[in-house]
Amino acid sequence: MPEPTLDITGWTCPAPLRETPRIVMGHGGGGALSAELVEQIFAPAFGGDILAQLGDSAALTLGGLRLAFSTDSYVVRPLFFPGGSIGDLAVNGTVNDLAMSGARAAYLSCGFILEEGIDMPVLARVAEAMGAAARAARVEVATGDTKVVEAGHGDGIYLNTAGIGLIPAGVDLRPQRVVPGDVVIVSGDIGVHGVAIMSVREGLEFGVEIESDCAALGGLVETMLAVTPDLHALRDPTRGGLAAALNEIAAASGTGIALQERAVPIPPTVGNACAILGLDPMYVANEGKLIAFVPRAHADAVLDAMRAHPLGAGAAIIGEAVEAHPGMVVAHTSLGGTRVVDLPVGEQLPRIC
Amino acid sequence: MPEPTLDITGWTCPAPLRETPRIVMGHGGGGALSAELVEQIFAPAFGGDILAQLGDSAALTLGGLRLAFSTDSYVVRPLFFPGGSIGDLAVNGTVNDLAMSGARAAYLSCGFILEEGIDMPVLARVAEAMGAAARAARVEVATGDTKVVEAGHGDGIYLNTAGIGLIPAGVDLRPQRVVPGDVVIVSGDIGVHGVAIMSVREGLEFGVEIESDCAALGGLVETMLAVTPDLHALRDPTRGGLAAALNEIAAASGTGIALQERAVPIPPTVGNACAILGLDPMYVANEGKLIAFVPRAHADAVLDAMRAHPLGAGAAIIGEAVEAHPGMVVAHTSLGGTRVVDLPVGEQLPRIC
Repeated sequence: MPEPTLDITGWTCPAPLRETPRIVMGHGGGGALSAELVEQIFAPAFGGDILAQLGDSAALTLGGLRLAFSTDSYVVRPLFFPGGSIGDLAVNGTVNDLAMSGARAAYLSCGFILEEGIDMPVLARVAEAMGAAARAARVEVATGDTKVVEAGHGDGIYLNTAGIGLIPAGVDLRPQRVVPGDVVIVSGDIGVHGVAIMSVREGLEFGVEIESDCAALGGLVETMLAVTPDLHALRDPTRGGLAAALNEIAAASGTGIALQERAVPIPPTVGNACAILGLDPMYVANEGKLIAFVPRAHADAVLDAMRAHPLGAGAAIIGEAVEAHPGMVVAHTSLGGTRVVDLPVGEQLPRIC
Repeated sequence: MPEPTLDITGWTCPAPLRETPRIVMGHGGGGALSAELVEQIFAPAFGGDILAQLGDSAALTLGGLRLAFSTDSYVVRPLFFPGGSIGDLAVNGTVNDLAMSGARAAYLSCGFILEEGIDMPVLARVAEAMGAAARAARVEVATGDTKVVEAGHGDGIYLNTAGIGLIPAGVDLRPQRVVPGDVVIVSGDIGVHGVAIMSVREGLEFGVEIESDCAALGGLVETMLAVTPDLHALRDPTRGGLAAALNEIAAASGTGIALQERAVPIPPTVGNACAILGLDPMYVANEGKLIAFVPRAHADAVLDAMRAHPLGAGAAIIGEAVEAHPGMVVAHTSLGGTRVVDLPVGEQLPRIC
């Protein structure tokens, strides 16, 4: 039987984004609306060079050193959820953004925006979670700031962290280095963080409690780079999930990405929860997983090293970069068909991180 | 006539801070309540070393380089005010925190927390103001992030910036280096930013419009360091005003600070506005001014260099570090008396930056 071919005749990129006159929740979702904000508002204001870097960690040169520099704000609701808290997210999220440049996070800043009236023990628990997460990731919280806004102008605690770290010599991880033939590896089960948040937020019961996979990936990345510094690109599939991360890399590299849908590790609890809720696990946020684009010659060795690391035990090859359908992610389904995996417009579930 | 002496018999430090069970506006004011948060919540959670650095820029070592690293969140209301906007503040505030370590800001991160429903042109104006301020300060916005929260959980736009810059060789600016005999110089009129915010927020008319002094001080600091790298400490007197900045340095250095009250430059518009509102200009926030602790031998040359710079034209010597009353700031009044200038508990006016 011939391999089914993908008919993309007449397919176009998602419709030109609506010029929304006001900010909507989707502008914070890490999808097409977020990209629109960068293109239409931030890039013109800050200068064009910045476009490619916004939303990711930036690789900089300062005093002859190569540094990674990244920031994220955290507005997750609720503040505490199975497997973590806003404090864990704020440390691990920024540590992971730096790790995606190959950098071991060295220092974090933290900025608190507190809502008047929150209980001091709540703040203390968040700070303790940050401290514990920082020690686990071996990063130092070096500087901070606290602002307070009136009751009704916040939601308990908003957090921002920025981080800096050194990029090791010989490491050059960026989507533009991805070439056809690169193997796509995911470090483990996807969709876990988003479903964990949703289950507690919506009071849903799925028989078993689903815990967020929130974790710091610096050690896993070091393990991978010890196999070869010549990885091409890494990405943590947070807001917008695996689909957004793959689409961003396809767009930036100009290659196509062919995904073997049945190879994507989706735990039954996540699959069942998503089925009930009408969600696609490919679009659900993660916070302790990464995807790697690895030259084929190194793929098996990198996969073995990942599987030997506690945070990569469930690592799997899920596809490859291809010359066909440049800029587009195409999933080969378990039924033998194909489908285009689009960049999401917003986020299925806001305030996930 | 003998010099009036200061009778501090029976004077004690501000009463041990109330153990407030909830966050109040004053916890974000940069005064004693902010210090309490750091001591009681953040320092124990993050580790003791961080205590002295929180609330200021941190001097770090990374890959053999000496870096300054700082962050601030901005929640000023309204977003636009005479002389500036939240975008100007977000750039200049962090650039200035770095400058207080002697570092020229090189890169900024920016994190937006947007409230659902704000008009896109408002966001665009803020982003444009940030871009223009960054170009003026010769700093690059290198990485960013956007989150959106539901209407009623924000106040239009909250902003965070973090910044990094190189500390030049031979420069070591910190409060601990202040010694008795150091001359205290302020770079110009105080109280302007706070009164500008207040006038627009409260719809007050003082006959003339008072514009914020919001500006980036990196160039002024370079000019000062060109006279001598051996400045002892710099501080930008933002939240809590001149009083908070001087108290922090007195406490950290263990020296006393003797202030000549009549030498403190307070423009008549600020003085009049404060008189009407019952405020003390010493406690009103600034965002384009600095105070410098300079060895006596260099004081005149540094003062001359400051006055030759547009942002230091109104520079003045306002006092000195002394052996008497260690850790305490004492003002010698124009009537020949003395008074203790306390660390404020909170901030006279919240959400000033």
